[in-house]
Amino acid sequence: MKKTAVSLDKAYLLLNHGPVTLISTAYDGKQNVMAASWVMPLDFSPPKLALVIDSQSYTHALMQESRELVVNIPSNMIAEKVLSAGGESGRNMDKFAHCGLQTEVASMVAAPLVKGCLAWLECKLIPEQHIESTYDLFVVEVVAAWADTDVFDGTCWRFTEESQRTMHYISNGNFLSSGDLIPLS
Amino acid sequence: MKKTAVSLDKAYLLLNHGPVTLISTAYDGKQNVMAASWVMPLDFSPPKLALVIDSQSYTHALMQESRELVVNIPSNMIAEKVLSAGGESGRNMDKFAHCGLQTEVASMVAAPLVKGCLAWLECKLIPEQHIESTYDLFVVEVVAAWADTDVFDGTCWRFTEESQRTMHYISNGNFLSSGDLIPLS
Repeated sequence: MKKTAVSLDKAYLLLNHGPVTLISTAYDGKQNVMAASWVMPLDFSPPKLALVIDSQSYTHALMQESRELVVNIPSNMIAEKVLSAGGESGRNMDKFAHCGLQTEVASMVAAPLVKGCLAWLECKLIPEQHIESTYDLFVVEVVAAWADTDVFDGTCWRFTEESQRTMHYISNGNFLSSGDLIPLS
Repeated sequence: MKKTAVSLDKAYLLLNHGPVTLISTAYDGKQNVMAASWVMPLDFSPPKLALVIDSQSYTHALMQESRELVVNIPSNMIAEKVLSAGGESGRNMDKFAHCGLQTEVASMVAAPLVKGCLAWLECKLIPEQHIESTYDLFVVEVVAAWADTDVFDGTCWRFTEESQRTMHYISNGNFLSSGDLIPLS
Protein backbone atom coordinates (compact mmCIF):
# COMPACT_ATOMS: atom_id res chain seq x y z
CA MET A 1 0.00 0.00 0.00
CA LYS A 2 1.49 3.28 -1.13
CA LYS A 3 -0.83 6.28 -1.03
CA THR A 4 0.11 8.74 -3.75
CA ALA A 5 -1.48 11.92 -5.10
CA VAL A 6 -3.58 11.52 -8.25
CA SER A 7 -3.51 14.40 -10.75
CA LEU A 8 -6.74 16.34 -10.43
CA ASP A 9 -7.50 15.94 -14.16
CA LYS A 10 -7.35 12.14 -13.67
CA ALA A 11 -9.46 12.02 -10.51
CA TYR A 12 -12.66 11.10 -12.41
CA LEU A 13 -10.97 7.84 -13.46
CA LEU A 14 -11.22 6.65 -9.86
CA LEU A 15 -15.04 6.62 -10.11
CA ASN A 16 -15.79 5.75 -13.77
CA HIS A 17 -16.56 2.15 -12.86
CA GLY A 18 -19.20 2.95 -10.25
CA PRO A 19 -17.72 1.55 -7.03
CA VAL A 20 -19.44 1.86 -3.66
CA THR A 21 -18.00 4.70 -1.60
CA LEU A 22 -17.76 5.85 1.99
CA ILE A 23 -18.60 9.52 2.48
CA SER A 24 -16.79 11.07 5.44
CA THR A 25 -17.65 14.43 6.92
CA ALA A 26 -16.54 16.57 9.86
CA TYR A 27 -17.69 19.78 11.48
CA ASP A 28 -16.93 21.44 14.80
CA GLY A 29 -15.34 18.39 16.44
CA LYS A 30 -17.97 15.95 15.16
CA GLN A 31 -17.42 13.53 12.31
CA ASN A 32 -19.35 10.85 10.48
CA VAL A 33 -19.14 8.26 7.75
CA MET A 34 -21.81 6.66 5.54
CA ALA A 35 -21.85 4.25 2.61
CA ALA A 36 -23.05 5.67 -0.72
CA SER A 37 -23.38 4.20 -4.18
CA TRP A 38 -25.09 7.10 -5.89
CA VAL A 39 -21.90 8.97 -6.72
CA MET A 40 -20.61 9.69 -10.23
CA PRO A 41 -18.15 11.90 -12.08
CA LEU A 42 -19.65 15.08 -13.51
CA ASP A 43 -16.72 16.84 -15.15
CA PHE A 44 -13.05 16.34 -15.97
CA SER A 45 -11.10 19.49 -15.10
CA PRO A 46 -11.61 20.96 -12.67
CA PRO A 47 -13.00 17.60 -11.56
CA LYS A 48 -16.54 17.59 -10.25
CA LEU A 49 -18.78 14.85 -8.90
CA ALA A 50 -22.52 14.52 -8.48
CA LEU A 51 -23.80 12.58 -5.49
CA VAL A 52 -27.02 11.90 -3.62
CA ILE A 53 -27.09 12.42 0.15
CA ASP A 54 -30.39 11.95 1.97
CA SER A 55 -31.47 15.19 3.59
CA GLN A 56 -32.42 13.25 6.75
CA SER A 57 -28.92 11.85 7.24
CA TYR A 58 -26.35 13.02 9.76
CA THR A 59 -23.81 13.21 6.92
CA HIS A 60 -26.10 15.77 5.27
CA ALA A 61 -26.21 17.84 8.45
CA LEU A 62 -22.41 17.89 8.84
CA MET A 63 -21.87 18.58 5.14
CA GLN A 64 -24.32 21.48 5.14
CA GLU A 65 -22.26 23.10 7.89
CA SER A 66 -18.75 22.28 6.67
CA ARG A 67 -19.45 22.41 2.89
CA GLU A 68 -16.84 19.64 2.55
CA LEU A 69 -16.62 15.86 2.37
CA VAL A 70 -14.31 13.03 1.33
CA VAL A 71 -15.37 10.31 -1.11
CA ASN A 72 -13.43 7.23 0.04
CA ILE A 73 -13.32 4.15 -2.23
CA PRO A 74 -13.09 1.07 0.00
CA SER A 75 -11.31 -2.20 -0.65
CA ASN A 76 -13.34 -5.42 -0.71
CA MET A 77 -11.32 -6.42 2.36
CA ILE A 78 -13.48 -4.10 4.49
CA ALA A 79 -16.85 -5.04 2.98
CA GLU A 80 -18.36 -5.86 6.39
CA LYS A 81 -17.40 -2.44 7.73
CA VAL A 82 -18.86 -0.73 4.67
CA LEU A 83 -22.09 -2.65 5.12
CA SER A 84 -22.17 -1.55 8.75
CA ALA A 85 -21.58 2.07 7.69
CA GLY A 86 -24.61 1.83 5.42
CA GLY A 87 -26.92 0.56 8.11
CA GLU A 88 -27.18 2.98 10.98
CA SER A 89 -27.09 6.71 11.62
CA GLY A 90 -24.05 8.25 13.30
CA ARG A 91 -26.12 10.96 14.96
CA ASN A 92 -25.94 9.33 18.39
CA MET A 93 -22.74 7.30 18.22
CA ASP A 94 -19.12 7.39 17.05
CA LYS A 95 -19.81 5.66 13.77
CA PHE A 96 -16.13 5.15 12.97
CA ALA A 97 -15.67 3.22 16.21
CA HIS A 98 -18.98 1.40 15.69
CA CYS A 99 -17.88 0.20 12.24
CA GLY A 100 -14.27 -0.46 13.21
CA LEU A 101 -13.00 2.18 10.79
CA GLN A 102 -9.88 4.21 11.39
CA THR A 103 -9.00 7.55 9.86
CA GLU A 104 -6.13 9.79 8.90
CA VAL A 105 -5.97 13.50 8.24
CA ALA A 106 -6.89 14.84 4.79
CA SER A 107 -4.88 17.56 3.04
CA MET A 108 -7.46 20.14 1.99
CA VAL A 109 -10.61 19.44 4.01
CA ALA A 110 -11.50 18.78 7.65
CA ALA A 111 -13.27 15.51 6.83
CA PRO A 112 -10.96 12.53 7.44
CA LEU A 113 -9.63 9.92 5.02
CA VAL A 114 -10.86 6.42 5.89
CA LYS A 115 -8.19 3.74 6.24
CA GLY A 116 -8.72 0.46 4.40
CA CYS A 117 -9.68 2.32 1.24
CA LEU A 118 -7.93 2.28 -2.12
CA ALA A 119 -8.60 5.87 -3.18
CA TRP A 120 -9.78 9.15 -1.68
CA LEU A 121 -11.28 12.27 -3.24
CA GLU A 122 -11.33 15.39 -1.05
CA CYS A 123 -14.24 17.57 -2.12
CA LYS A 124 -15.84 20.97 -1.56
CA LEU A 125 -19.50 21.64 -2.16
CA ILE A 126 -20.61 23.83 -5.06
CA PRO A 127 -23.91 25.42 -4.00
CA GLU A 128 -26.82 24.30 -6.18
CA GLN A 129 -29.80 25.01 -3.99
CA HIS A 130 -32.58 23.86 -6.32
CA ILE A 131 -31.30 20.33 -6.96
CA GLU A 132 -30.13 20.01 -3.35
CA SER A 133 -33.60 20.68 -2.00
CA THR A 134 -35.54 18.95 -4.79
CA TYR A 135 -33.51 15.76 -5.23
CA ASP A 136 -30.92 15.62 -2.39
CA LEU A 137 -28.48 15.91 -5.32
CA PHE A 138 -25.17 17.65 -4.66
CA VAL A 139 -22.35 18.90 -6.87
CA VAL A 140 -18.84 18.93 -5.43
CA GLU A 141 -15.45 19.90 -6.77
CA VAL A 142 -12.55 17.53 -6.13
CA VAL A 143 -9.71 19.54 -4.59
CA ALA A 144 -7.29 16.66 -3.85
CA ALA A 145 -7.18 12.98 -4.81
CA TRP A 146 -5.14 10.01 -3.64
CA ALA A 147 -4.87 6.36 -4.59
CA ASP A 148 -3.02 3.22 -3.60
CA THR A 149 -0.41 2.77 -6.33
CA ASP A 150 -0.55 -1.01 -5.87
CA VAL A 151 -3.91 -0.93 -7.70
CA PHE A 152 -4.16 2.46 -9.47
CA ASP A 153 -1.30 3.49 -11.73
CA GLY A 154 -2.26 7.16 -12.04
CA THR A 155 -4.66 6.71 -14.96
CA CYS A 156 -6.09 3.19 -14.63
CA TRP A 157 -7.16 0.64 -12.03
CA ARG A 158 -4.96 -2.49 -12.19
CA PHE A 159 -6.50 -5.29 -10.16
CA THR A 160 -4.45 -8.47 -10.14
CA GLU A 161 -5.22 -10.04 -6.76
CA GLU A 162 -8.72 -11.06 -5.65
CA SER A 163 -8.13 -9.05 -2.50
CA GLN A 164 -7.56 -5.32 -2.75
CA ARG A 165 -10.24 -4.60 -5.33
CA THR A 166 -12.96 -2.01 -5.29
CA MET A 167 -16.52 -3.24 -4.88
CA HIS A 168 -20.04 -2.48 -6.02
CA TYR A 169 -23.26 -2.51 -4.04
CA ILE A 170 -26.13 -4.43 -5.61
CA SER A 171 -28.96 -4.94 -3.07
CA ASN A 172 -30.01 -6.65 0.17
CA GLY A 173 -26.63 -6.07 1.81
CA ASN A 174 -24.67 -7.64 -1.03
CA PHE A 175 -21.58 -6.40 -2.84
CA LEU A 176 -19.78 -7.61 -5.95
CA SER A 177 -16.02 -7.25 -6.24
CA SER A 178 -14.77 -5.42 -9.29
CA GLY A 179 -14.07 -8.20 -11.77
CA ASP A 180 -11.38 -8.92 -14.30
CA LEU A 181 -10.39 -6.96 -17.38
CA ILE A 182 -12.43 -7.94 -20.42
CA PRO A 183 -10.10 -9.05 -23.23
CA LEU A 184 -10.70 -7.05 -26.42
CA SER A 185 -9.21 -7.84 -29.79
CA MET B 1 -32.58 -14.95 -22.02
CA LYS B 2 -36.04 -14.02 -20.87
CA LYS B 3 -36.84 -10.32 -20.88
CA THR B 4 -39.32 -9.51 -18.12
CA ALA B 5 -40.72 -6.29 -16.71
CA VAL B 6 -39.04 -4.97 -13.55
CA SER B 7 -41.27 -3.23 -10.99
CA LEU B 8 -40.69 0.48 -11.24
CA ASP B 9 -39.84 0.74 -7.54
CA LYS B 10 -37.03 -1.80 -8.08
CA ALA B 11 -35.61 -0.19 -11.23
CA TYR B 12 -32.84 1.63 -9.32
CA LEU B 13 -31.42 -1.77 -8.35
CA LEU B 14 -30.37 -2.27 -11.96
CA LEU B 15 -27.91 0.64 -11.68
CA ASN B 16 -26.72 0.58 -8.05
CA HIS B 17 -23.46 -1.12 -9.01
CA GLY B 18 -22.40 1.47 -11.58
CA PRO B 19 -22.32 -0.50 -14.84
CA VAL B 20 -21.49 1.08 -18.18
CA THR B 21 -24.62 1.83 -20.20
CA LEU B 22 -25.69 2.45 -23.77
CA ILE B 23 -27.97 5.46 -24.19
CA SER B 24 -30.34 5.11 -27.13
CA THR B 25 -32.39 7.97 -28.54
CA ALA B 26 -34.77 8.54 -31.45
CA TYR B 27 -36.51 11.51 -33.01
CA ASP B 28 -38.29 12.05 -36.30
CA GLY B 29 -37.00 8.90 -37.99
CA LYS B 30 -33.43 9.34 -36.76
CA GLN B 31 -31.89 7.32 -33.95
CA ASN B 32 -28.57 7.04 -32.16
CA VAL B 33 -26.70 5.15 -29.47
CA MET B 34 -23.74 6.14 -27.28
CA ALA B 35 -21.83 4.57 -24.39
CA ALA B 36 -22.13 6.34 -21.03
CA SER B 37 -20.75 5.59 -17.58
CA TRP B 38 -21.86 8.75 -15.81
CA VAL B 39 -25.34 7.46 -14.99
CA MET B 40 -26.69 6.86 -11.45
CA PRO B 41 -29.95 6.37 -9.58
CA LEU B 42 -31.40 9.54 -8.09
CA ASP B 43 -34.62 8.37 -6.45
CA PHE B 44 -36.59 5.21 -5.66
CA SER B 45 -40.25 5.76 -6.48
CA PRO B 46 -41.07 7.14 -8.88
CA PRO B 47 -37.62 6.09 -10.04
CA LYS B 48 -35.36 8.80 -11.33
CA LEU B 49 -31.83 8.80 -12.72
CA ALA B 50 -29.17 11.47 -13.10
CA LEU B 51 -26.90 11.26 -16.12
CA VAL B 52 -24.33 13.33 -17.96
CA ILE B 53 -24.71 13.78 -21.72
CA ASP B 54 -22.24 16.04 -23.52
CA SER B 55 -24.06 18.98 -25.08
CA GLN B 56 -21.99 18.54 -28.27
CA SER B 57 -23.18 14.95 -28.80
CA TYR B 58 -25.75 13.79 -31.32
CA THR B 59 -27.50 11.91 -28.51
CA HIS B 60 -27.96 15.27 -26.78
CA ALA B 61 -29.52 16.75 -29.93
CA LEU B 62 -32.01 13.88 -30.35
CA MET B 63 -32.83 13.83 -26.64
CA GLN B 64 -33.49 17.55 -26.56
CA GLU B 65 -36.08 17.07 -29.31
CA SER B 66 -37.70 13.85 -28.13
CA ARG B 67 -37.31 14.39 -24.34
CA GLU B 68 -36.86 10.58 -24.08
CA LEU B 69 -34.10 8.00 -23.96
CA VAL B 70 -33.40 4.39 -23.01
CA VAL B 71 -30.60 3.42 -20.61
CA ASN B 72 -29.50 -0.02 -21.83
CA ILE B 73 -27.18 -2.12 -19.62
CA PRO B 74 -24.99 -4.22 -21.91
CA SER B 75 -23.61 -7.71 -21.34
CA ASN B 76 -19.84 -8.21 -21.31
CA MET B 77 -20.40 -10.35 -24.42
CA ILE B 78 -20.82 -7.17 -26.49
CA ALA B 79 -17.92 -5.21 -24.97
CA GLU B 80 -16.35 -4.51 -28.38
CA LYS B 81 -19.60 -3.03 -29.66
CA VAL B 82 -19.96 -0.86 -26.56
CA LEU B 83 -16.41 0.40 -27.03
CA SER B 84 -17.24 1.22 -30.64
CA ALA B 85 -20.39 3.06 -29.51
CA GLY B 86 -18.23 5.20 -27.23
CA GLY B 87 -15.79 6.19 -29.91
CA GLU B 88 -17.52 8.02 -32.76
CA SER B 89 -20.46 10.34 -33.32
CA GLY B 90 -23.60 9.04 -34.99
CA ARG B 91 -24.36 12.39 -36.57
CA ASN B 92 -23.25 11.27 -40.03
CA MET B 93 -23.75 7.51 -39.91
CA ASP B 94 -26.13 4.78 -38.79
CA LYS B 95 -24.34 4.13 -35.54
CA PHE B 96 -26.30 0.95 -34.76
CA ALA B 97 -25.14 -0.58 -38.06
CA HIS B 98 -21.63 0.79 -37.53
CA CYS B 99 -21.37 -0.88 -34.12
CA GLY B 100 -23.19 -4.06 -35.15
CA LEU B 101 -26.00 -3.38 -32.67
CA GLN B 102 -29.58 -4.46 -33.27
CA THR B 103 -32.68 -3.04 -31.67
CA GLU B 104 -36.23 -3.81 -30.69
CA VAL B 105 -39.18 -1.57 -29.98
CA ALA B 106 -39.59 -0.07 -26.50
CA SER B 107 -42.94 0.10 -24.71
CA MET B 108 -43.25 3.73 -23.58
CA VAL B 109 -40.72 5.73 -25.59
CA ALA B 110 -39.67 6.05 -29.23
CA ALA B 111 -36.02 5.30 -28.47
CA PRO B 112 -35.22 1.63 -29.14
CA LEU B 113 -34.04 -1.11 -26.78
CA VAL B 114 -30.59 -2.40 -27.73
CA LYS B 115 -30.23 -6.15 -28.13
CA GLY B 116 -27.36 -7.89 -26.35
CA CYS B 117 -28.15 -6.02 -23.17
CA LEU B 118 -29.21 -7.45 -19.80
CA ALA B 119 -31.53 -4.66 -18.69
CA TRP B 120 -33.28 -1.62 -20.10
CA LEU B 121 -34.71 1.50 -18.48
CA GLU B 122 -37.10 3.57 -20.59
CA CYS B 123 -36.90 7.20 -19.48
CA LYS B 124 -38.48 10.60 -19.95
CA LEU B 125 -36.64 13.85 -19.31
CA ILE B 126 -37.58 16.04 -16.35
CA PRO B 127 -36.70 19.61 -17.35
CA GLU B 128 -33.94 21.07 -15.18
CA GLN B 129 -32.59 23.86 -17.32
CA HIS B 130 -29.90 25.22 -15.00
CA ILE B 131 -28.00 21.96 -14.42
CA GLU B 132 -28.54 20.91 -18.05
CA SER B 133 -26.86 24.03 -19.38
CA THR B 134 -24.25 24.35 -16.59
CA TYR B 135 -23.10 20.73 -16.24
CA ASP B 136 -24.69 18.74 -19.10
CA LEU B 137 -26.43 16.98 -16.19
CA PHE B 138 -29.91 15.58 -16.84
CA VAL B 139 -32.64 14.17 -14.63
CA VAL B 140 -34.95 11.53 -16.10
CA GLU B 141 -37.86 9.53 -14.76
CA VAL B 142 -37.90 5.79 -15.47
CA VAL B 143 -41.29 4.93 -17.01
CA ALA B 144 -40.64 1.26 -17.81
CA ALA B 145 -37.87 -1.20 -16.93
CA TRP B 146 -36.91 -4.66 -18.17
CA ALA B 147 -34.28 -7.22 -17.29
CA ASP B 148 -33.07 -10.64 -18.35
CA THR B 149 -34.38 -12.99 -15.65
CA ASP B 150 -31.37 -15.29 -16.18
CA VAL B 151 -29.28 -12.70 -14.33
CA PHE B 152 -31.70 -10.37 -12.50
CA ASP B 153 -34.31 -11.95 -10.23
CA GLY B 154 -36.48 -8.85 -9.86
CA THR B 155 -34.58 -7.38 -6.91
CA CYS B 156 -30.96 -8.53 -7.30
CA TRP B 157 -28.35 -9.29 -9.94
CA ARG B 158 -27.36 -12.99 -9.86
CA PHE B 159 -24.24 -13.55 -11.94
CA THR B 160 -23.13 -17.17 -12.03
CA GLU B 161 -21.44 -17.53 -15.43
CA GLU B 162 -18.44 -15.47 -16.53
CA SER B 163 -20.37 -14.58 -19.65
CA GLN B 164 -23.61 -12.61 -19.30
CA ARG B 165 -22.43 -10.16 -16.71
CA THR B 166 -22.66 -6.41 -16.69
CA MET B 167 -19.44 -4.45 -17.08
CA HIS B 168 -17.75 -1.29 -15.89
CA TYR B 169 -15.67 1.20 -17.84
CA ILE B 170 -12.33 2.13 -16.29
CA SER B 171 -10.17 4.02 -18.82
CA ASN B 172 -8.20 3.79 -22.07
CA GLY B 173 -10.83 1.62 -23.74
CA ASN B 174 -10.86 -0.95 -20.94
CA PHE B 175 -13.77 -2.56 -19.14
CA LEU B 176 -13.98 -4.78 -16.07
CA SER B 177 -16.66 -7.43 -15.80
CA SER B 178 -18.86 -7.29 -12.74
CA GLY B 179 -17.12 -9.66 -10.33
CA ASP B 180 -18.28 -12.24 -7.83
CA LEU B 181 -20.39 -11.79 -4.73
CA ILE B 182 -18.31 -10.92 -1.68
CA PRO B 183 -18.93 -13.46 1.09
CA LEU B 184 -20.05 -11.77 4.31
CA SER B 185 -20.38 -13.46 7.67
